[in-house]
Amino acid sequence: MSFDRLIEKIVEKQNPTVAGLDPKMAYIPEYIKKESFEKYGKTLAGAADAILTYNKGLIHELCDIVPAIKPQCAYYEMYGWQGMKALAETIEYAKSKGMFVITDGKRNDIGTTMEAYAIAHLGVTDIDGEAEEAFGGDALTVNGYLGTDGIKPLIDICNKKDKGIFVLAKTSNPSSGELQNLEFTNGETVYLHMGRMCEQWGEDLTGKYGYSGVGAVVGATYPEMLTELRKELPKTFFLVPGYGAQGGGAKDCQGAFDSNGIGAIVNSSRGIMCAWQKEEGLDEKDYAKAARREAIRMRDDLKSVIGEMKI
Amino acid sequence: MSFDRLIEKIVEKQNPTVAGLDPKMAYIPEYIKKESFEKYGKTLAGAADAILTYNKGLIHELCDIVPAIKPQCAYYEMYGWQGMKALAETIEYAKSKGMFVITDGKRNDIGTTMEAYAIAHLGVTDIDGEAEEAFGGDALTVNGYLGTDGIKPLIDICNKKDKGIFVLAKTSNPSSGELQNLEFTNGETVYLHMGRMCEQWGEDLTGKYGYSGVGAVVGATYPEMLTELRKELPKTFFLVPGYGAQGGGAKDCQGAFDSNGIGAIVNSSRGIMCAWQKEEGLDEKDYAKAARREAIRMRDDLKSVIGEMKI
Repeated sequence: MSFDRLIEKIVEKQNPTVAGLDPKMAYIPEYIKKESFEKYGKTLAGAADAILTYNKGLIHELCDIVPAIKPQCAYYEMYGWQGMKALAETIEYAKSKGMFVITDGKRNDIGTTMEAYAIAHLGVTDIDGEAEEAFGGDALTVNGYLGTDGIKPLIDICNKKDKGIFVLAKTSNPSSGELQNLEFTNGETVYLHMGRMCEQWGEDLTGKYGYSGVGAVVGATYPEMLTELRKELPKTFFLVPGYGAQGGGAKDCQGAFDSNGIGAIVNSSRGIMCAWQKEEGLDEKDYAKAARREAIRMRDDLKSVIGEMKI
Repeated sequence: MSFDRLIEKIVEKQNPTVAGLDPKMAYIPEYIKKESFEKYGKTLAGAADAILTYNKGLIHELCDIVPAIKPQCAYYEMYGWQGMKALAETIEYAKSKGMFVITDGKRNDIGTTMEAYAIAHLGVTDIDGEAEEAFGGDALTVNGYLGTDGIKPLIDICNKKDKGIFVLAKTSNPSSGELQNLEFTNGETVYLHMGRMCEQWGEDLTGKYGYSGVGAVVGATYPEMLTELRKELPKTFFLVPGYGAQGGGAKDCQGAFDSNGIGAIVNSSRGIMCAWQKEEGLDEKDYAKAARREAIRMRDDLKSVIGEMKI
């Protein structure tokens, strides 16, 4: 269990970006929706069909420059089981194009139930002796509020595979401090305590490049905490949301990276997905080309502060 | 947004039990699996079909004595989008039988994304002007690690409907204390702080019976904390896991209830679902009747310590 495969893809593409795929109907060009609604009506099935077409177009244009995608489960669940089917097919398509898939589910539960989530998103489901992948991602975001019981099953299932998890430490939203910034009697904050648990959970899982398969989510909107956590958690790889639409810039992400320019992957969802809506006079059929242009701009923006990524 | 409808069902049935539906292949009688596998093979679709048949049988036998079901999302996600289809159909069937549905997803995310989860599980999805329910539960379990941003969208979407949420405070698992029991500099524990946030989020949402629509999850495995939280959080309705298979007894749940015998609902999953595997010489076709017997036993067990439930 490690992030070696992800790190190799980042270095190969010299791009520490993950493209968030959080599809809302409002982000999808009209010509795609029209075609799907003609087939299935304005139904959950029609929406799911439009999402899949939209995602495939994006993946096709991004796969040679962006190492990973991060589909956000909520936007698929919103379209029912039909949306979850689009999620499974999006993941399958991205993997067929060589991309690393981080399923953003922030799942959490007690041991036996967490095992079911681990199987669902990172493992293989057993059906009375036959095996089938349910969603087949490469990494899953999780919430560590329940402690070790909720993390151990993931580690057991991911072991010996280059799969990983990202545990929420300091999230990018404005109210994240209500709990996460509070200090315990020993002077440690909740987010640092959670980070230290990540370091501990990943203790025996260090990969070739010094990082374990237990990563942490730390928002670009809190650059000082990002820098603090990088220093305190040398073996924990970071998933960094908050760049772009949420207000974080490349400079804010800098602290997440080590001296070799690795140690983190930065997410952009709306910035990349909705780039086409910001280019004046663009034919909506070129939505994925606009996403590609934004992904290249973001790559160069991040590289300008990180420098070369080396392993 | 309140738990009035749930409280009325509890009082009507004089039963503060929710039946957890966490279907694993090992819990399902062979004759059901055989029929499903003959139709769909040993595939995700075959497993999902067996789950739905099994659940419907349980709901049919439980619906006149148990007020609510709690399907655990993980066990449906494990069987892919086909499993999520079985989840949607289970919820629909339970509602058609008059049951209240608590979807156990422990969902959590930042504002805009949490809104998508709220729509998925408690609201109505808009598809370019047409409306369809994705999963249609009555309440959803959520994780409050991200603070108010992650809770507000749920409140907005549930407002004016008798729908609710349960926020994790003190979970029933052995390692829950690793984070939840730690004390802040003001002497408050994490679980109590989370409980106080629930009380605050529900402040203007008090229903007819004194409880708001923002509930909390508090495990029966920590009876002292259950009693403490009942005292500290007078407006917060509790969902209590941990009875039965996890070790909690009726006495352990007592502290969750107020002097009118309301204020909480106690979950049993394996205890009810797998009752048929514990009755010697039972024809497996009577699995749901065994579940009913266990549900009646549990109801009477809880009633013996709580007394009459009054509103």
